[in-house]
Amino acid sequence: MANKITPRKEDYSKWYNEIVVQADLAENSAVRGCMVIKPYGYAIWEKMQNELDKMFKETGHENAYFPLFVPKSLFEAEEKNAEGFAKECAVVTHYRLKNDGNNKGKLIVDPNAKLEEELIVRPTSEAVIWNTYKSWIQSYRDLPILINQWANVVRWEMRTRLFLRTAEFLWQEGHTAHTTKQEALDEAKLMNKIYANFVENFMSIPVIQGTKSLSERFAGAEETFCIEALMQDGKALQAGTSHFLGQNFAKAFDVKFASKNGGLEYVWATSWGVSTRLIGALIMTHSDDNGLVLPPNLAPYQVVIVPIYRGEEQMKEVLKVAEKIKSELINNNIRVKLDNRDNFKPGFKFNEYELKGVPLRIAIGPKDIENRNVEVARRDDFSKNIVSQNELPKYIKNQLIDIQKTLFDRAKKFQKDNITTVDSFEDFKDVLNKKGGFILAHWDGTEVTENAIKNETKATIRCIPLENKKETGACVYSGKPSKGRVFFAKAY
Amino acid sequence: MANKITPRKEDYSKWYNEIVVQADLAENSAVRGCMVIKPYGYAIWEKMQNELDKMFKETGHENAYFPLFVPKSLFEAEEKNAEGFAKECAVVTHYRLKNDGNNKGKLIVDPNAKLEEELIVRPTSEAVIWNTYKSWIQSYRDLPILINQWANVVRWEMRTRLFLRTAEFLWQEGHTAHTTKQEALDEAKLMNKIYANFVENFMSIPVIQGTKSLSERFAGAEETFCIEALMQDGKALQAGTSHFLGQNFAKAFDVKFASKNGGLEYVWATSWGVSTRLIGALIMTHSDDNGLVLPPNLAPYQVVIVPIYRGEEQMKEVLKVAEKIKSELINNNIRVKLDNRDNFKPGFKFNEYELKGVPLRIAIGPKDIENRNVEVARRDDFSKNIVSQNELPKYIKNQLIDIQKTLFDRAKKFQKDNITTVDSFEDFKDVLNKKGGFILAHWDGTEVTENAIKNETKATIRCIPLENKKETGACVYSGKPSKGRVFFAKAY
Repeated sequence: MANKITPRKEDYSKWYNEIVVQADLAENSAVRGCMVIKPYGYAIWEKMQNELDKMFKETGHENAYFPLFVPKSLFEAEEKNAEGFAKECAVVTHYRLKNDGNNKGKLIVDPNAKLEEELIVRPTSEAVIWNTYKSWIQSYRDLPILINQWANVVRWEMRTRLFLRTAEFLWQEGHTAHTTKQEALDEAKLMNKIYANFVENFMSIPVIQGTKSLSERFAGAEETFCIEALMQDGKALQAGTSHFLGQNFAKAFDVKFASKNGGLEYVWATSWGVSTRLIGALIMTHSDDNGLVLPPNLAPYQVVIVPIYRGEEQMKEVLKVAEKIKSELINNNIRVKLDNRDNFKPGFKFNEYELKGVPLRIAIGPKDIENRNVEVARRDDFSKNIVSQNELPKYIKNQLIDIQKTLFDRAKKFQKDNITTVDSFEDFKDVLNKKGGFILAHWDGTEVTENAIKNETKATIRCIPLENKKETGACVYSGKPSKGRVFFAKAY
Repeated sequence: MANKITPRKEDYSKWYNEIVVQADLAENSAVRGCMVIKPYGYAIWEKMQNELDKMFKETGHENAYFPLFVPKSLFEAEEKNAEGFAKECAVVTHYRLKNDGNNKGKLIVDPNAKLEEELIVRPTSEAVIWNTYKSWIQSYRDLPILINQWANVVRWEMRTRLFLRTAEFLWQEGHTAHTTKQEALDEAKLMNKIYANFVENFMSIPVIQGTKSLSERFAGAEETFCIEALMQDGKALQAGTSHFLGQNFAKAFDVKFASKNGGLEYVWATSWGVSTRLIGALIMTHSDDNGLVLPPNLAPYQVVIVPIYRGEEQMKEVLKVAEKIKSELINNNIRVKLDNRDNFKPGFKFNEYELKGVPLRIAIGPKDIENRNVEVARRDDFSKNIVSQNELPKYIKNQLIDIQKTLFDRAKKFQKDNITTVDSFEDFKDVLNKKGGFILAHWDGTEVTENAIKNETKATIRCIPLENKKETGACVYSGKPSKGRVFFAKAY
């Protein structure tokens, strides 16, 4: 626990992995590419779930649950979607094991228990959900359907990294059905706005809102809205997507509704999701070379109290006051942990909570008791203050609000400082190599140019910004006319 | 929606299925044995989750998440557990699909993407969790580990029924690790008690607490504690289990800890779970021939307001008051739905909410507005009362408490009336055939007798009651000495 972690400058990727493991967030499992989310990491995910769930419900969505498996014939029904995911599907082919006649105590797959039709472990649930919606939708009166699902999904990624890219991950996926194109488009935009709001205000991570270029779109979507965050190494991370699916799934699954004026029309669809990947974004936005830094909204405990004493008598005296402070803070709806372990020294505990990103640390010793004070240390800026015990709850509340804001402001400044506008491909490559970050450049709108830039630089179009200054220009690569600048970056 | 459902007496099984589907709780999916849990059913599950999660956390448990897949070599490590689940395992053998050269637009499993080791879709997670705990546990200081997981699991059942037995279901599974046998036993007992408390007080379902006989025990457990509920058709339903696993998994996965006195010992384990099956128990305990009956704690909305009017003017007037009542009730933390759909008649709505089990229905028309009254109808006993609008929040609150209690008392009386003590095998068979329910009879404690009774009557030992009157006697089947009576029943 007291190990020093590798500094970002030395090895950014190692720094990230060490934080995940040493802050007790997650670890690799015996199953290739699948992670174990440990209690401290899962508590952060629960906070995210609770807030998102509230936001979804406040905007009229309900939760439901659809099967883990997708029969192959349903999976392949929407061709583009199937093509997009076919290469990373875990496939169930058998439904029984039997004893291995040659090895006592060992099991083998029973060849007599082969499924007639293979089942795909869902990489996403459009297929199984639209096949269900078919029987739910007859008339315009059955619409809209506004459903969300909290679930696990599996995408057989070849190179995996804890939280950022895992074979199994946890997410929510919204799937809505509408009578008109406009209503579905509005829904997709609304959900992207909710994601931006959540990530910025709850997670303190600034994002760029935009749409994806054709080649970066969700397989089967007509438009993908997204939020893009910028990590400290200058690489972008897609933090959430919301798709306008047009009538593609309605047509693939033959889902029509009787309209008000008596016609029979295909239903319009959206889907949208965020995942445990957001925890990766969280780590790489706020943390430093001392470990994890958590925004107070997401901290499993926002305050840790570390008692300082020598000998049993002092311990009793200090713990009595510490308990009282703990109760007071809990009564003020602050999440508090009192670390009264006697077999670890205060310095060890300080390191541990620094590593785990606890926003505020209260240290209290005999002298503080005499003076009716405590020492409060902030994780985000390492500042320390002596605070009167009487004023503590109010002080802590204000500090938590301030930390939440400070983290956002700091990340926002970093984002701003790392958006570079360029007008030549030389500058583009130069900025990308020396500085990184988002590059705002003119693009001619073609896939050919997009691919050429990607092949030469590894940078992709992260998004076509929603708040697009109307500005015409010449494509940074081809010199052809451009209708506006787009965000390029290397990405996770 | 207005369809009458089949009466219980006519066809109990059909009655159950019709309630599940017509009350909009769940439906079968395109995937054999897997269900779609619809928003109304899922909202009930969410209420159950919230309450259980609170109870788990209050007793020191934390949530975490472990992989969906179990490599075959881990799965088979604890032999009894593996044997118990081997015949119902969904097995992932491949990780990629490819285009079918012979059928454009179709996909086939890519034979080049065969996994080196097959992955079992978890039927339960002891194996993958204990393999993880191995690296978490070195010393007694690392113990106890008290972890719970909310997850989906898959057991390839041949005969499935919505909620009661599905190939995929949702559940929670607790997995704890301890230094001593006693501590693990206490944990298993505590969790069984928490389940009993939850099911009785939150779901209004009375249960019998007990332990399982050897043959009904969880595969790999040394003792299984359980709660058993009684359904209206006289069959028992296992509503939750809590297992003392001894050192079986610690030995299978070589999980040892350095004890305080310097030795190296195997860790003691428990696991415990309840699932969406509880929704089946809920339906079959309280519902009637008019549909679902929900205890107020579990009702997605506890009160529905149905406005009654003729013409636009009355509608406005009535809806204005209805909205005001809705707000007042919401301010009193009551979950309310106002059904202001203009295209359905009040009678239709009454049927719908009766079918969906909404505990209280408020009807309000022009006359009620004149008299400042409303009509309140109870779903559980069909009673109707005229209540002054002023007194409404208080009245509704009291009624909700009363319904919660009435449902429990009614089910408790049913349970009591259907526990029959018998002293001969003739009586045993007679009661089982004519009356059903729990049969309390002496048993000689052997598996041979248990199996013989099962083969002749289909009744199994549901549990050896915890509150066992110390009474010796003669086994109802073999005549051999018995140390106490046990509960027999036919079961779901």
